[in-house]
Amino acid sequence: MCSLPVPREPLRRVAVTGGTHGNEMSGVYLARHWLHAPAELQRASFSAVPVLANPAATSSCRRYVDHDLNRTFTSSFLNSRPTPDDPYELQYPELSCQVFLYQRSGEESYNLDSVAKNGLGLELGPQPQGVLRADIFSRMRTLVATVLDFIELFNQGTAFPAFEMEAYRPVGVVDFPRTEAGNLAGTVHPQLQDRDFQPLQPGAPIFQMFSGEDLLYEGESTVYPVFINEAAYYEKGVAFVQTEKFTFTVPAMPALTPAPSPAS
Amino acid sequence: MCSLPVPREPLRRVAVTGGTHGNEMSGVYLARHWLHAPAELQRASFSAVPVLANPAATSSCRRYVDHDLNRTFTSSFLNSRPTPDDPYELQYPELSCQVFLYQRSGEESYNLDSVAKNGLGLELGPQPQGVLRADIFSRMRTLVATVLDFIELFNQGTAFPAFEMEAYRPVGVVDFPRTEAGNLAGTVHPQLQDRDFQPLQPGAPIFQMFSGEDLLYEGESTVYPVFINEAAYYEKGVAFVQTEKFTFTVPAMPALTPAPSPAS
Repeated sequence: MCSLPVPREPLRRVAVTGGTHGNEMSGVYLARHWLHAPAELQRASFSAVPVLANPAATSSCRRYVDHDLNRTFTSSFLNSRPTPDDPYELQYPELSCQVFLYQRSGEESYNLDSVAKNGLGLELGPQPQGVLRADIFSRMRTLVATVLDFIELFNQGTAFPAFEMEAYRPVGVVDFPRTEAGNLAGTVHPQLQDRDFQPLQPGAPIFQMFSGEDLLYEGESTVYPVFINEAAYYEKGVAFVQTEKFTFTVPAMPALTPAPSPAS
Repeated sequence: MCSLPVPREPLRRVAVTGGTHGNEMSGVYLARHWLHAPAELQRASFSAVPVLANPAATSSCRRYVDHDLNRTFTSSFLNSRPTPDDPYELQYPELSCQVFLYQRSGEESYNLDSVAKNGLGLELGPQPQGVLRADIFSRMRTLVATVLDFIELFNQGTAFPAFEMEAYRPVGVVDFPRTEAGNLAGTVHPQLQDRDFQPLQPGAPIFQMFSGEDLLYEGESTVYPVFINEAAYYEKGVAFVQTEKFTFTVPAMPALTPAPSPAS
């Protein structure tokens, strides 16, 4: 299914970015915390560099200033020469170097993690915008520590066996019901709200109209909605993303071949 | 405790405002809905007028554009003549008429409802910014309908007996723990998060520091925190508001004396 590139040598340059969206507070405050306490990102074989990705949006607690930063990592943006007149989020001179794309079924990726050789995006939520919740903050912190521990094991020559896992892949997006003028005519049904990754059966209610009636899911098969009623996606015309569940095999990762010693 | 003015004649001019803060979505969408379906605000003796209070902030899904609208209803703002150079929220020419203040212990009120003869503010939440949740939307809709029904009963000459009720009044505010530079050094403890109006005992944890330790509530008496970890209050230096619970008597409201008939 996925053919992620398997690195063949120890990972030395690791960056952890937070606050790509300035109003998603767990990442904002974890990045700020790590900038002051970087020891938490150190392992024996490498140190991860914390990066606060969008300082101006973070200052004003907004998703972005001029352009959604996490939609700008395409080759056309990355290959253009930035000018002072560009929108704020398109001015990233430090990043205008070689680009490695993580491609999904032929599509170009636009996300921040696509500019790394081995990018990994961690989505935690749903979380309310502009609120730093201790529970999500702690989960994000533990998850990042686990990733760093994995890189450390890999760098030390650990082999990882193949395994199977379940995952979800997008199969479509559903917009809110709208009036002819484009305004909302209803919102996510209470029976769907807060049920990300749970099965949605044909015939189940998905929207509650302001007029009082329910709109039902009319698809033919069970789907697994995610990004349900996500504040940031109102502007993108997305009430939720339909996914399907599938199983895929993660191939074995053999131990690194030790590099020839400089003395040999 | 409170000495609310008791109106002595039927209420005919009733306004229901929503979207005073443009990213609190229940009020935004209820006001928009009522603008298109005003019959829901009609009663036999009056019709309430729906008002979308801050259209520009609503368009960009922000609390406010230039100035927190719900802090501008003071006599100094209301008595000044607006100019085109004023901040957006200070330009309310339609409202620069006589002002009736709802005063709390000598303080001038700054809230929108203070410009009405009998203003009533309904706070629903906590609700995530930029998200229209059906559960809060429905509660707000029912609550407004109940207020309108009450006005209708009052206008029709219903007498209401005195009764006692419990309420909460603010006794102080608590800021987040901060670094010397003013950044957050921790956030609301998971044992306090989502417990608005529940008792907080001396010695209970209130903040979880990024360094890992807990900060405890060191007050001497039980308080009832509200506005816990409210996104809009980060900029105001408020992690939560401490209240005390008390009982007060709502005086009887006698039936309106029928106005002399024009023919008599």
